[in-house]
Amino acid sequence: MKAAVLFKTGELLTLVDNLVAPELISGQVKVDIIYTGLCHSQLMEVKGLRGEDKYLPHLLGHEAVAKVKEIGPQVTKVQVGDIVVLGWIKGEGLDAPGGIYSYQGTKINAGGVTTFSQESIVSENRVVKLPAGIPYKLAILLGCALPTGAGLVLNQLKPQHNAKIAVFGLGGIGLSALITARLFKPNMLIAVDIEPKKLELAGALGATHCINAQDENYLEQIVELTQGGCDYTIEAGGTCSSIEDAFTAVKEHGGQCIFASHPEEGATIQLEPHAFHRGKQIMGSWGGSSHPDTDIPKLVELYNEHKLPFEKLLSDSYSLDEINQALQDLDERKITRALIAVNPQLDPDNG
Amino acid sequence: MKAAVLFKTGELLTLVDNLVAPELISGQVKVDIIYTGLCHSQLMEVKGLRGEDKYLPHLLGHEAVAKVKEIGPQVTKVQVGDIVVLGWIKGEGLDAPGGIYSYQGTKINAGGVTTFSQESIVSENRVVKLPAGIPYKLAILLGCALPTGAGLVLNQLKPQHNAKIAVFGLGGIGLSALITARLFKPNMLIAVDIEPKKLELAGALGATHCINAQDENYLEQIVELTQGGCDYTIEAGGTCSSIEDAFTAVKEHGGQCIFASHPEEGATIQLEPHAFHRGKQIMGSWGGSSHPDTDIPKLVELYNEHKLPFEKLLSDSYSLDEINQALQDLDERKITRALIAVNPQLDPDNG
Ligand SMILES: [Zn+2]
Ligand SMILES: [Zn+2]
Repeated sequence: MKAAVLFKTGELLTLVDNLVAPELISGQVKVDIIYTGLCHSQLMEVKGLRGEDKYLPHLLGHEAVAKVKEIGPQVTKVQVGDIVVLGWIKGEGLDAPGGIYSYQGTKINAGGVTTFSQESIVSENRVVKLPAGIPYKLAILLGCALPTGAGLVLNQLKPQHNAKIAVFGLGGIGLSALITARLFKPNMLIAVDIEPKKLELAGALGATHCINAQDENYLEQIVELTQGGCDYTIEAGGTCSSIEDAFTAVKEHGGQCIFASHPEEGATIQLEPHAFHRGKQIMGSWGGSSHPDTDIPKLVELYNEHKLPFEKLLSDSYSLDEINQALQDLDERKITRALIAVNPQLDPDNG
Repeated sequence: MKAAVLFKTGELLTLVDNLVAPELISGQVKVDIIYTGLCHSQLMEVKGLRGEDKYLPHLLGHEAVAKVKEIGPQVTKVQVGDIVVLGWIKGEGLDAPGGIYSYQGTKINAGGVTTFSQESIVSENRVVKLPAGIPYKLAILLGCALPTGAGLVLNQLKPQHNAKIAVFGLGGIGLSALITARLFKPNMLIAVDIEPKKLELAGALGATHCINAQDENYLEQIVELTQGGCDYTIEAGGTCSSIEDAFTAVKEHGGQCIFASHPEEGATIQLEPHAFHRGKQIMGSWGGSSHPDTDIPKLVELYNEHKLPFEKLLSDSYSLDEINQALQDLDERKITRALIAVNPQLDPDNG
């Protein structure tokens, strides 16, 4: 089968044609990947910004929609033929290791979920049956961007109505957070990015104000606009400075900054200790504190009620052969969330 | 009257003999200072590490026990003759400005509470009547160290029983936190400082382990001892690196670091963003979120029940003339909390 393999960090992925999957062991599920997403996380791994990579060569990808092809011993959560969401956040079920594939005599490693291949062996706890009502293409967002971006609003921030909220960084996670924050009827919903196109999209999705982070004094603009700072800032810009800015932009005496970015290994954020004493708060997020088995159905329900317009978040579609182009477009901030069509013929909506 | 005045940052305080207090205005209370404490905050102000000082020359000090001499218009909280605790945390009552004193034709500024003078004019909301049962000398701790150190445990952390708790920095605030944390029956209560004498004192006050922060790998020692990190760390070491270390020493998935230090203006703490995602938390403290009017009586009650042994926290006593020596001893970490006897003849326990 075809797969995109990372042989060396700092280089492109290598497309190989004859990767061989092993036999399933307890807790593993073999799937045909239909569509996979691509996020900043894979970009960091490819670039080698996640620290030393001890698993090379290996497979990547952690969000997809797929069709179950075979189940390993003791798997009870899904059956052959089920359409499932694959994601990196652990849910119910056995926690199995990834498969060890082979390619021309070389071992190719993989974690509990990988998606950049036609077939994949994943752990039972990374698989959730796709609820009815949502197109397969959109469902890839349920593996990473939505549980994280919507989850950090629904499970962690739980913003009060009439709040002043700013979202820093309008990729898949930031936009997911933005459309979810909108459900809490904010007084202001400020979108921040450096790409005019993304700011325009955020405006169409309900942002009340759009601010370009390349403007000089853009933080002062936010503080002035909000008369002293935001009640909540949500950060998904990918860098330490974007986290620092989001912390700066919250108000004293109770302002909360939540950040989703995972900057490169070893990087630190620099914060003013006095700001903490004056009542600013900051917290991280592990997948929006989402529980995939209960939260994915909730998100789909919100979609079906036309409350969360996921469909606006997906960018262009690429084939698996074009995956390096997708990585580059993401790196250049041209797209919010790439869709890689791996086995699009398995999507009944397709053709 | 006699007072210690800061004329220029970076220099010693100047003892003057004939400072003249103004008439009282609405919300002001004139007191005779009996004893005052001295803390890291004044040391920072004297050294000029609190940013530009726009109020020079001025009076300092924010924790004392005093006797009310005169009350200004509209003051209802205290009466002439009352013994009161003065502290920097605002409580009930009018929020009046400080007095503007004069010395040989020069204006001497003062905030809503200052204590380095025989007489002082303070704001009604910085005054709380001293509850019965506690010696005057100890009561100075009720103005700053105890509400902050005990408050951050009682009002903010509220540690669970059997927790692993470490206290970084064994000054007045750190030791106050330590004796208070002990009430929550921790499984481990680890004291951290660079002074063997302070560690010894902490041991006598109930620390289960004492670790010298000058030991190489002292953080690894804590992580090993606690098998992965503390449930709570309380920081009062005064520096950014001590805050950073306290954050490092909490466990992932729910460990909480609370810090009381106010490092010099403009300094920043450097934290690893991934640590937040892995569930470490950090927060500051504004006077331990204490409400002086309700919390000071509570602290005295705990003292009277022999639950909080304040008496171990006070260091040597100095006269007002010796205040520069006290500042120096504090700077050299020789003492935990200096007691300055300003009008000790007003203390019935004294002679
Ligand atoms: Zn992702
Ligand atoms: Zn103080």
